[in-house]
Amino acid sequence: MITPRTLKGFRDFLPEQMIARDKLLEIAADVYRSYGFVPIDTPALEYLEILSGKGSDETDKQLYKFQDHGGRDVALRFDLTVPLARFSAQHINELGTPFKRYQFGKVWRGENTQAGRYREFTQCDFDTIGTRSIVADIETALVIHDLLQRIDIKTNVPFENFTIHINNRKVLTGMLEKQGLVEKTVQVLRALDKLAKIGEAKVVNEMTETAGTNAEQAKNVLQLASIKGESKQIIEQLRTLLKGNETGETGAEELETICNALKAAGVPDSRTVIDLSIARGLDYYTGTIFETFLNGLPSIGSVCSGGRYDNLAELYTNQQLPGIGASLGIDRLLAAMEELKMLPKSQTTAKVFIPNFAPNRVNDYLRIITQLRKSGVAADFYPEQKKLGNQLKYADKKGFPYAIIIGEEEFEKQTAQIKNLVTGENKEVKQDEITSELFG
Amino acid sequence: MITPRTLKGFRDFLPEQMIARDKLLEIAADVYRSYGFVPIDTPALEYLEILSGKGSDETDKQLYKFQDHGGRDVALRFDLTVPLARFSAQHINELGTPFKRYQFGKVWRGENTQAGRYREFTQCDFDTIGTRSIVADIETALVIHDLLQRIDIKTNVPFENFTIHINNRKVLTGMLEKQGLVEKTVQVLRALDKLAKIGEAKVVNEMTETAGTNAEQAKNVLQLASIKGESKQIIEQLRTLLKGNETGETGAEELETICNALKAAGVPDSRTVIDLSIARGLDYYTGTIFETFLNGLPSIGSVCSGGRYDNLAELYTNQQLPGIGASLGIDRLLAAMEELKMLPKSQTTAKVFIPNFAPNRVNDYLRIITQLRKSGVAADFYPEQKKLGNQLKYADKKGFPYAIIIGEEEFEKQTAQIKNLVTGENKEVKQDEITSELFG
Repeated sequence: MITPRTLKGFRDFLPEQMIARDKLLEIAADVYRSYGFVPIDTPALEYLEILSGKGSDETDKQLYKFQDHGGRDVALRFDLTVPLARFSAQHINELGTPFKRYQFGKVWRGENTQAGRYREFTQCDFDTIGTRSIVADIETALVIHDLLQRIDIKTNVPFENFTIHINNRKVLTGMLEKQGLVEKTVQVLRALDKLAKIGEAKVVNEMTETAGTNAEQAKNVLQLASIKGESKQIIEQLRTLLKGNETGETGAEELETICNALKAAGVPDSRTVIDLSIARGLDYYTGTIFETFLNGLPSIGSVCSGGRYDNLAELYTNQQLPGIGASLGIDRLLAAMEELKMLPKSQTTAKVFIPNFAPNRVNDYLRIITQLRKSGVAADFYPEQKKLGNQLKYADKKGFPYAIIIGEEEFEKQTAQIKNLVTGENKEVKQDEITSELFG
Repeated sequence: MITPRTLKGFRDFLPEQMIARDKLLEIAADVYRSYGFVPIDTPALEYLEILSGKGSDETDKQLYKFQDHGGRDVALRFDLTVPLARFSAQHINELGTPFKRYQFGKVWRGENTQAGRYREFTQCDFDTIGTRSIVADIETALVIHDLLQRIDIKTNVPFENFTIHINNRKVLTGMLEKQGLVEKTVQVLRALDKLAKIGEAKVVNEMTETAGTNAEQAKNVLQLASIKGESKQIIEQLRTLLKGNETGETGAEELETICNALKAAGVPDSRTVIDLSIARGLDYYTGTIFETFLNGLPSIGSVCSGGRYDNLAELYTNQQLPGIGASLGIDRLLAAMEELKMLPKSQTTAKVFIPNFAPNRVNDYLRIITQLRKSGVAADFYPEQKKLGNQLKYADKKGFPYAIIIGEEEFEKQTAQIKNLVTGENKEVKQDEITSELFG
């Protein structure tokens, strides 16, 4: 006998969790589609050379790689961005630009499994490829806003449940240019990106070590990173700080354009903040960057992050493909919902349960249930003849809202008992009135 | 520069194909849910020992297997049934029986890629676990029926588009018992399963070789396999043929019960057939078996197959878990739709396209588009300012049904032009009437 178990770092999704996950994916697809994004899919396995050296040294180490039956070096994808770059290089001429795609898919990383991290997780990305227009940045922010508004995680804080943090790499670069640190941009931003995690002192240490900053420079970088707040004041402050530096001024202007557009589209000011401390470690971001936090649950990290890049597919094509995109953190959101006890208790999505207890009436039950299903009522029919009480216990455990009880007497009278399994209430109706009663 | 390409046997899904695939999956989920099936998920990677030796020698050879970072022997799943067996052994006590689950997921097989076969494909399974009741068999048939009815592939044949072929292993076993061939059941059924593919003569050869049948026995087996037709006549014929053999008689009775129930549930007789030639090669089937063919497209093979098994998880637990399930062949259905030119031409799911051409009006466009999206109209806003004609060409290529055209003049009059991109018709409406005009 083989012990049934999942691999370390992997997990099964039981119905309760899966119903919640499907619901999140449904909302995400619905929001993406409402902005004109279209779905694509790419394989789980890619040539190793497509995937290796595209993330950090860490992602390289974490790659699940092996040889396939034909002796090819292959690996499981570790994100959906590198496959998108490969996909775009291959198909963009056929598809045309701008190309707005979304993609849901599993990705795999052989990570350390401490701290509730899994080696298989779901990514939900959306990107607008082939345009430098700030309109794409604005719509990306609007999508993030609609996602979080629709998902509606009640974090029990007095005001907004979520805040979208917006920054612009050009502002950071402008500042580094003014500080004479532009050659060390990568090192400085990587250190800065750890601010929330490791604190100021350690960030200064890392900057000194990897970028050779002096005390004054480090202080100025940290001062800039500490700027955070409502758009109008911040923009003024940035204009003053970055005066005379073209890159920085452009960044400030882009931030302003986005904030004004969000206001025009009806996004409350209280849901966005300009936050110069978010740096997004990834080197390829070049303009707007986003992170999104659940207020009252900062420990869970950003639940929707992304940004603008100048050249998505430069490793695979000479064609330049600028764009902007972000990724919704489904697994983090589910963890948050679990922590907040927001996951539905129900193990079913069906509205009614039909116990099977009148002898020799299977075909009569099926006649009625077929009508229910045809009129849009999802109905679970118990397959075995058992005592009614046992069947109702099953229904209760699974969390059905209603049971439609039809015994021999009801068959003869052509009636049914609609039992509300939450309140215990019972109501006798004609069999052809069940649907209208349930929806009425 | 790295050549952007997918691995041999793997493929990308472009928006047109992906929209069609998503639509099929949506229908499948909807039908499964309407019968009370609930979703689960299991990892793509499993311990090698969980997966190897569970299918045929062929699936063993085709396994993508390797060692993970911790030196564990692992493999990518080759179907969703073996993971379900492992999952059930692990969780069934928590979940309780009967347990009705569906699962959509990618599976991987290092197959020969001739004849349009892919090494990565999607399975869409549903199973009812933990019951021997014939009601589960009946509902499985009803699910298959509703799936194919909803998917509605027009095969251009005069009558029904699909036929569900039903058989019962007990009928076959009963016949083999009567022929003194019961010890060779596996060999005979494996040979019989190839009937459609290799023809009678080769099946007889294989049976003689592997099961040692004589000419008389082979003739009788083939005669039984040739029985096919409307339920009432067939049942009579089987009762005569199998008289005195308990297993066979039970099988005939089960077939009769299912056919009568399908009739009660309103399934037209013309959509089902009892077909003793379908044997389903897999050894674990023990009762009802199903295959489903698109009439006019038999070459594509069965698009929904499954059957009853006595013991799903015997390799992982002592608990006996009988059940019944089937799998919808999404990839075959998509191939059929492609062959029949049924795939939608559209590369978008959004209803309207909004060109962006009035200067300095981005925020005004966004105000209007936000209202459209809030009222449920999926709207794609062009991110760049370009000539209207160019933008409409883009909209035409993507296949949007409508464009909402708002230039400077329309902004001033607070109107919009609704352009039907199929007919070319134009209609000017007030901006706050766009939604009602589109849905009216």
